[in-house]
Amino acid sequence: MLSDQQFLRIPGPTPIPPSVQRAILQPMIGHRDEETKMLLQTIRPRLKPIFGTEQEVLILAGSGTSGLETAVVNTTQPHDEVLVLVTGAFGERFAQICEAHQLVTHRMEAPPGEAIAPEHVKAFLSANPSIKVVFATFCETSTAVLNPIQELAQVVQQNSDALLVVDGVSCVGGVETKMDDWGIDVLVTGSQKALMLPPGLTFIAVSDRAWDRVHHNPRPRFYFDLKKYHDNLVKDSTPFTPAVSLLFGLDQVLNLVEEEGVKQVFTRHQLMMKMTRSACHALQLPLLTTDQSASPTVTAVYPRDFQANELRHVLLKEFGLNLAGGQQELKNKIFRIGHMGYCSLADVLQTISLLELGLARLGVGREAGVGSAAAQLTFLNGGKTE
Amino acid sequence: MLSDQQFLRIPGPTPIPPSVQRAILQPMIGHRDEETKMLLQTIRPRLKPIFGTEQEVLILAGSGTSGLETAVVNTTQPHDEVLVLVTGAFGERFAQICEAHQLVTHRMEAPPGEAIAPEHVKAFLSANPSIKVVFATFCETSTAVLNPIQELAQVVQQNSDALLVVDGVSCVGGVETKMDDWGIDVLVTGSQKALMLPPGLTFIAVSDRAWDRVHHNPRPRFYFDLKKYHDNLVKDSTPFTPAVSLLFGLDQVLNLVEEEGVKQVFTRHQLMMKMTRSACHALQLPLLTTDQSASPTVTAVYPRDFQANELRHVLLKEFGLNLAGGQQELKNKIFRIGHMGYCSLADVLQTISLLELGLARLGVGREAGVGSAAAQLTFLNGGKTE
Repeated sequence: MLSDQQFLRIPGPTPIPPSVQRAILQPMIGHRDEETKMLLQTIRPRLKPIFGTEQEVLILAGSGTSGLETAVVNTTQPHDEVLVLVTGAFGERFAQICEAHQLVTHRMEAPPGEAIAPEHVKAFLSANPSIKVVFATFCETSTAVLNPIQELAQVVQQNSDALLVVDGVSCVGGVETKMDDWGIDVLVTGSQKALMLPPGLTFIAVSDRAWDRVHHNPRPRFYFDLKKYHDNLVKDSTPFTPAVSLLFGLDQVLNLVEEEGVKQVFTRHQLMMKMTRSACHALQLPLLTTDQSASPTVTAVYPRDFQANELRHVLLKEFGLNLAGGQQELKNKIFRIGHMGYCSLADVLQTISLLELGLARLGVGREAGVGSAAAQLTFLNGGKTE
Repeated sequence: MLSDQQFLRIPGPTPIPPSVQRAILQPMIGHRDEETKMLLQTIRPRLKPIFGTEQEVLILAGSGTSGLETAVVNTTQPHDEVLVLVTGAFGERFAQICEAHQLVTHRMEAPPGEAIAPEHVKAFLSANPSIKVVFATFCETSTAVLNPIQELAQVVQQNSDALLVVDGVSCVGGVETKMDDWGIDVLVTGSQKALMLPPGLTFIAVSDRAWDRVHHNPRPRFYFDLKKYHDNLVKDSTPFTPAVSLLFGLDQVLNLVEEEGVKQVFTRHQLMMKMTRSACHALQLPLLTTDQSASPTVTAVYPRDFQANELRHVLLKEFGLNLAGGQQELKNKIFRIGHMGYCSLADVLQTISLLELGLARLGVGREAGVGSAAAQLTFLNGGKTE
């Protein structure tokens, strides 16, 4: 193997397309120059179809977590009661942010690998009319669960006056998202997952009724104050120095998305998920999630006859294939295959073939090629599994 | 002129060295991988000489303003009394962050172009023993003033128990800074000024006595909570996804700084300041600051016989030279020449020659070449002006 080759198939950060790399390298410009204003003008409207919204998508310099905290501090006041839907490590992070900001924080947890059931949320909200905000994770990166945001949004709307705030970090851009139609009030994502950029940007869109709360919210904040970002829109500007080189890259990311077609991007992610899952079935690799709650961007595998980290170690050392492990109680139990962003059907097939090689090295008695065959068949069937 | 050439001589963002550009382009890696840990291990100790500290320099993904807010929320509690030394737009921003976070905020202002006088601070602190933190701007980007941080630190230490928090965004890395020796408690900077990187990182170092306050501070915070960054140091990690590509770039920036020698970097900035100032004197371009309060990273010029923005417009349109204008009450009155980061003596000479061409185009009666001659002479004299 070429010693400098590495296949980054973790659920983010994800590989950067060469044309995006080149775009990032454009000579630096002044952050208050006409060129930056034009760049923002060019970018902003093109983010809307990805979010499924007519609202402005605001861009902050920071990690995804800074976007989640921005959502929390703008929509809540100390001692508000909130409900956090926890399906793994990132739901738990949302809850910790809420607690750090003095919210009365109710957690509704699902077992690892399971999604939140909308009827549980319905029951909780009916019994707890004082909930001001429901926080949900769209794709829970740590378990590869895709929560049913459309149904959850419906339940929240029909059973409460609460806002619905959604962490879309590890799927927006790869999974169809209809913020406006579904009734998401605040949707957050990051740059380093399906959006094919290095980490360093976070994106946030806000519904009209959430803007109303944001504008009247006296909670102390400055860098995270969405009003400041909103007020700068008319000037095609940002309140603080934007991460200009990532904006150059984002412009090219949007070119790539538009060339492929945003719907086709979502279809490709669906297909990559199905190929990966059918390969795992064929290789007798148990999946952590059901088909119904599986994310198109990441797949979690829970092998019972070998240690997940042994396989990961072999794959990385011998073949340069970088898969993610499990976190917390899933540590060393699962491995996770990222298939999002700059990842093609060909990349999935390569990943599966290397995975088969790794299994051969472990000597766990899987037949060579059956995973590859299953993935190919799924592709040839247009995503229909047998 | 080559249509794609532009000379970015604003006080940040600043040009990126080609080798740093190439470093930024390294293939993406996992943010929790061994390679990222090694990168952080390699980088962290080498930031210390730039800050003049034995403390760890923490790295956050965000704009410089996010670093300033981090300093505010970690060192204060609501209703604390603080003093902000305001010498321009960025001192005023510090004050606004303090007000946003419910601090009883006293401003001490100096007229545009003047530094804060330490004796005024001494008198204020003696009369106001309840001040918990003094916030100061090292280089005030908007006026090109370098405040006397060493003297201010001495005055703060001798006349109060207050912490001294310093915004070093537009000079740390270009100006000698001795955080420990001088007694700065919190020092903040950004990536896009003297540190030759795109915007997107902010750096923060904290003294022992400030750490003590940070660790006992109950103020709600999450992304900006320095304790989280501190606790991750032992794991060579960061609490949230770092801006990996900028860390690749930072490693190469540190290589460049070490090849030149950090003292030589500071000397180069001194020399660039002196060359620029002597050229302006020779061209009868009045300077906004005195020699004593001039910053080595940026020079502000206050012409009396023409509009600053007319000159800037000609320089940009005709010669691709991008100088900064004035802000707020200095709008259209001053122009500012950035000479920091990836900027050499040769770049300063080029800037001055183009400036002379611009003056010729305006027809304001300056003799061609006298500024260039003065700058060259200053260089040949090793920075001694006549």
